[in-house]
Amino acid sequence: MPTELATPAPTAPLSSLEGAQPLQRLIGELQAELPQLEVRVPSALTREYAVDASTRGRLAGIDIGPAVAFPSTAAEVQVIVRTAAELGIAVVPRGAGSGLAGGATADERQLVVSTERLDRVVEVSPLDEVAVVEPGVINADLNRHLEPYGLFYAPDPASWDISSIGGNIATNAGGLRCAKYGVTRESILALDVVLADGALVHVGHRSIKGVTGLDLVSLFVGSEGILGIVVAATVRLRPIPVARRTVSAFFATTAAGADALAAITRSTVRPSVVEFFDSRTLANIDAHSGSTLTARGGALLLIELDGYGIDEQSADLRAALEAVGGLVTEESVEDGEALWELRRSGRGFDPAEWFAGGDIAVPKSRIPEIFAHFPVVEERFGVTVGAVAHAGDGNLHPVITLRIPEGADPGVVPPQLHDAAVALAEFALELGGTVSGEHGIGSSKLGLAALELSERSREAQHAIKRALDPAALFNPGKAI
Amino acid sequence: MPTELATPAPTAPLSSLEGAQPLQRLIGELQAELPQLEVRVPSALTREYAVDASTRGRLAGIDIGPAVAFPSTAAEVQVIVRTAAELGIAVVPRGAGSGLAGGATADERQLVVSTERLDRVVEVSPLDEVAVVEPGVINADLNRHLEPYGLFYAPDPASWDISSIGGNIATNAGGLRCAKYGVTRESILALDVVLADGALVHVGHRSIKGVTGLDLVSLFVGSEGILGIVVAATVRLRPIPVARRTVSAFFATTAAGADALAAITRSTVRPSVVEFFDSRTLANIDAHSGSTLTARGGALLLIELDGYGIDEQSADLRAALEAVGGLVTEESVEDGEALWELRRSGRGFDPAEWFAGGDIAVPKSRIPEIFAHFPVVEERFGVTVGAVAHAGDGNLHPVITLRIPEGADPGVVPPQLHDAAVALAEFALELGGTVSGEHGIGSSKLGLAALELSERSREAQHAIKRALDPAALFNPGKAI
Repeated sequence: MPTELATPAPTAPLSSLEGAQPLQRLIGELQAELPQLEVRVPSALTREYAVDASTRGRLAGIDIGPAVAFPSTAAEVQVIVRTAAELGIAVVPRGAGSGLAGGATADERQLVVSTERLDRVVEVSPLDEVAVVEPGVINADLNRHLEPYGLFYAPDPASWDISSIGGNIATNAGGLRCAKYGVTRESILALDVVLADGALVHVGHRSIKGVTGLDLVSLFVGSEGILGIVVAATVRLRPIPVARRTVSAFFATTAAGADALAAITRSTVRPSVVEFFDSRTLANIDAHSGSTLTARGGALLLIELDGYGIDEQSADLRAALEAVGGLVTEESVEDGEALWELRRSGRGFDPAEWFAGGDIAVPKSRIPEIFAHFPVVEERFGVTVGAVAHAGDGNLHPVITLRIPEGADPGVVPPQLHDAAVALAEFALELGGTVSGEHGIGSSKLGLAALELSERSREAQHAIKRALDPAALFNPGKAI
Repeated sequence: MPTELATPAPTAPLSSLEGAQPLQRLIGELQAELPQLEVRVPSALTREYAVDASTRGRLAGIDIGPAVAFPSTAAEVQVIVRTAAELGIAVVPRGAGSGLAGGATADERQLVVSTERLDRVVEVSPLDEVAVVEPGVINADLNRHLEPYGLFYAPDPASWDISSIGGNIATNAGGLRCAKYGVTRESILALDVVLADGALVHVGHRSIKGVTGLDLVSLFVGSEGILGIVVAATVRLRPIPVARRTVSAFFATTAAGADALAAITRSTVRPSVVEFFDSRTLANIDAHSGSTLTARGGALLLIELDGYGIDEQSADLRAALEAVGGLVTEESVEDGEALWELRRSGRGFDPAEWFAGGDIAVPKSRIPEIFAHFPVVEERFGVTVGAVAHAGDGNLHPVITLRIPEGADPGVVPPQLHDAAVALAEFALELGGTVSGEHGIGSSKLGLAALELSERSREAQHAIKRALDPAALFNPGKAI
């Protein structure tokens, strides 16, 4: 809760529901039917539920937040959705609010359904290699819970310490290990979902295989809350690998490092993680973290190997990367962890700069071209561009920055940052890529999505949306 | 083409389309618009297109088959679908006809669209690790094509020598390697699909990651031809593993072998294939192939390891299986290949027996229970039941047999075979399983699907079907 808010919460006129606004009626009906359910009325105190992690900058312009309900059972979610449907109130499902595309933004006429109290690990079955979890479980908490079993849940978005499984499902979250272990969709076997009429359905299977009916699990995964609210998920687990090893490979230039990715692809080694840092990113990390990465080279491939035969894997990887000029080091456990910590938290955002981000992906052979395009964008828009790439799956997150001129208002971001981000997304599309690799479309990227998807393809998506939510009450204006 | 058919093909009255039946009008219009397109009129010669591999027994009762079109371009498929839609003719997409659930059955009022001439491998990109293929490409042909690149396409349904990629996509085909490499869905990155109005859409991405819009790729995969016709697929490839090894583990009894699966799960080894043969299956193979498997034990786990550290993997696997009483052998390349050949082709079907099959899956910890239930079903229905299981993913294919009594009509299968299959499917559901692991629902298993899926879940599926095919012209009466 932002501490600067001192306004007391307004009290809704619950005593007289006749003639009340629909949202007030909804709140009243929920309080009558579910007295144990906490529902917060729209107020200054609910402002944080109006935004996600990517749109917190808008908070200053928001006086009143949405209504927020905090169900702790699936049955409560059903009542909430059914009642909202009867009254025609839009429902915005919300996980941990860590989204990066405005997928959970909401206004004072809407009801946010927070899943944060649906936070039980219902079951862990080592012999089925599944866990059943509620959507509010934080990704990292699930993995801490699984560690004593020798198991892990593979999808590892960079937000894993703060993002929830439900939010991960809503965005089909990616992460670092996806090239080897798949994105979130590949780890979701079954879902319990509350549909737009309040019905609870179980879809999917508890086995790897199962083809009865259309694959509704995959349809709900990545649907950003526009088709239903996930209230439980059966997730696939895997044994913690017998070994893990960090290998670094430094190259003279960004171009040399990007070109070296092909050497990994041509080899028989498939690392669990391949992160590519360009020159600007290494310099940024050194400046902000006091590290000395740039002394080792102008670009870095930071690689994690795992599984059996780690020495053989490491030798094959070394041979492949040295053949293309890499300075290859098998890192000690401590040095490796220090490098991954720099990956996670080493970069800084200078308050004297404006910045804009991106989430593009390209076919992995085109990674050298997208990095080679950064200087073109820099020159055209007068900005600087650097990126770390999840290079194994073609996904990268460009960071576009511009120094704030003396006397300028830091809150007024000049259009060239946005324009540069769009230009990069357009170039990714030219390369056969996508405007969103793993963050989703939300409310922020509908324009970019329209560049990628054909009119007919979007029509098909809207037809499916109408089929499952004819009144368009689930997370309106998002995703499609 | 069945050789016993001597009836000449009737000629449709193409000269006068006015007043012709809709299907004849459709054929006439297609011949006018696409003179190069082969379209066969409904006749005795198209009877084989009325059935799939599981329904060939019905051929004797079919006089006239469906109309069949053989497009060789996506544009032809578009014209066919658009024209059929205008005339209200049902379209039945068909791959290689190797399906096992009646998914491609068609009658003389319908137009089958065969994808067998859409059979080009359009592109192989080793650096993107993808291939772009047309749907008529045979699974094994694709892998032969890929071998010089050191790459393979992982999904390996047992029908891989005869089934097409398009059919594999339609059924979300499984296979032996799924526990490690996933089912077909996990290897399909993008699709070109002709929708019910004849529009061609491209959905998906050429990178592992990509979350723009709803996941229509996964929706089309496994949709059994009821939502669209796939005319091209971008499939994920993987490097051929650096090593493969076959390990056999014999156990005294079916129960001991089934129980031993848990020992693999508890270990850190994840084989690429784990096939479990029960005692009846081993006896059947020995009887039909002259092998001596039963001399080695009463049940068999036939395992393939692959990848790095094959000796370490093998040692850990041996330790795990010997600890639960397994007689473990690391097979030579020749002996291993002989065992896999027995797995693929060693079983026989005695013409003196009726038989029925199944395709159930259960959570993998429940495999011992489903095998322990076979004697219950045998006693209750007076049949015999045996199975091979893709044990790593919980999928098994029970074979139910009954000796045909002296003088009985072999063509009149007594109901207890079907009833026994249903009883096994019901028991699989009790165990938290599914009535179809990998073959699909088609026209044969709609009753079983209704046992598994809730009314509301089926309603949601039908709503999606109506959204994409409002006139219900794609493969009517199948899948959902």
